Amino acid sequence: MFYCSKCGARVTEKIPAGDDRPRHVCVACQTVHYQNPKIVAGCIPVWENRLLLCQRAIEPRQGLWTLPAGFMENGESTEQAAVRETLEEARAEVGELSLYGVFSIPHINQVYMMFRGRLQARKFAPGRESLEVKLFEEHQIPWEELAFPVVRLTLERYFRDIRTNHFPVYVENIIRHPARKV
Amino acid sequence: MFYCSKCGARVTEKIPAGDDRPRHVCVACQTVHYQNPKIVAGCIPVWENRLLLCQRAIEPRQGLWTLPAGFMENGESTEQAAVRETLEEARAEVGELSLYGVFSIPHINQVYMMFRGRLQARKFAPGRESLEVKLFEEHQIPWEELAFPVVRLTLERYFRDIRTNHFPVYVENIIRHPARKV
Repeated sequence: MFYCSKCGARVTEKIPAGDDRPRHVCVACQTVHYQNPKIVAGCIPVWENRLLLCQRAIEPRQGLWTLPAGFMENGESTEQAAVRETLEEARAEVGELSLYGVFSIPHINQVYMMFRGRLQARKFAPGRESLEVKLFEEHQIPWEELAFPVVRLTLERYFRDIRTNHFPVYVENIIRHPARKV
Repeated sequence: MFYCSKCGARVTEKIPAGDDRPRHVCVACQTVHYQNPKIVAGCIPVWENRLLLCQRAIEPRQGLWTLPAGFMENGESTEQAAVRETLEEARAEVGELSLYGVFSIPHINQVYMMFRGRLQARKFAPGRESLEVKLFEEHQIPWEELAFPVVRLTLERYFRDIRTNHFPVYVENIIRHPARKV
């Protein structure tokens, strides 16, 4: 951020009076431009003993497999966001959503809100951001070709919990591995 | 938003190619400036059969009572945000956090993440944004002087659940009452 979105003047980084961390502050109108984490809402779409994964058509991680998920929009609820993303990426309708995981990823300023949901029909197709959309049984999951750590974490929890049919709500953090560059 | 924070040119509202809703787009460098909901992380700080409320020193709702809560910052987890806000507003240390409510408020683009937490000592004091900080038993709660609907909702759930000592995770939405102007 280099310019004030309100008046167009330059911004500088400084700690505003009464604050405790540097912010982007306009040199002209003094507006403080806060930056906050974003919510990524997503879903495990379940059909009988299978779940739906999407093969990513776009970067990052093009060609790898993911659960439908994306940035929550203004004006919607977390469940609405998860339902919309599933419709957009997998052209699939999910219902009966239950919150399953709240996964903070501090180093990229994201909080994933993952729901379990039931496919309302055996109907799905690749959306704009997907190459392919497919139902997987547990033994078919492409563990080595998952797009993001949060997808692996969610699926690991899910396939553990399905044995007992007990699904708590996980609140966990995904910390960057120190040796990893990305 | 009137100016591009990247290059300082004007922004215009339009639907970018492949998108489905209007965004602020820079007329010069074409950067799309997305706006997304913010997370407000907060806590019910519990001490024996009482809980801690803060009387707001600042607008909005100055003078009314609230649970410690505030905007989650980049680089932290949701629990860290709730702990930090409790420290800032009530000068109180909480531990053993459990997620209790995820409350979407679509008309103000906020998602509250409310935790239950245990006060680590009977030690608290007003922070910069509080006039007073006080422990309340259930019959002492100032129901008519609560700052926000989300605070009332959280406390109502809490005092219902404490009778059974069973605390689920609530995922609910707070919809603006059509007759209300604010």
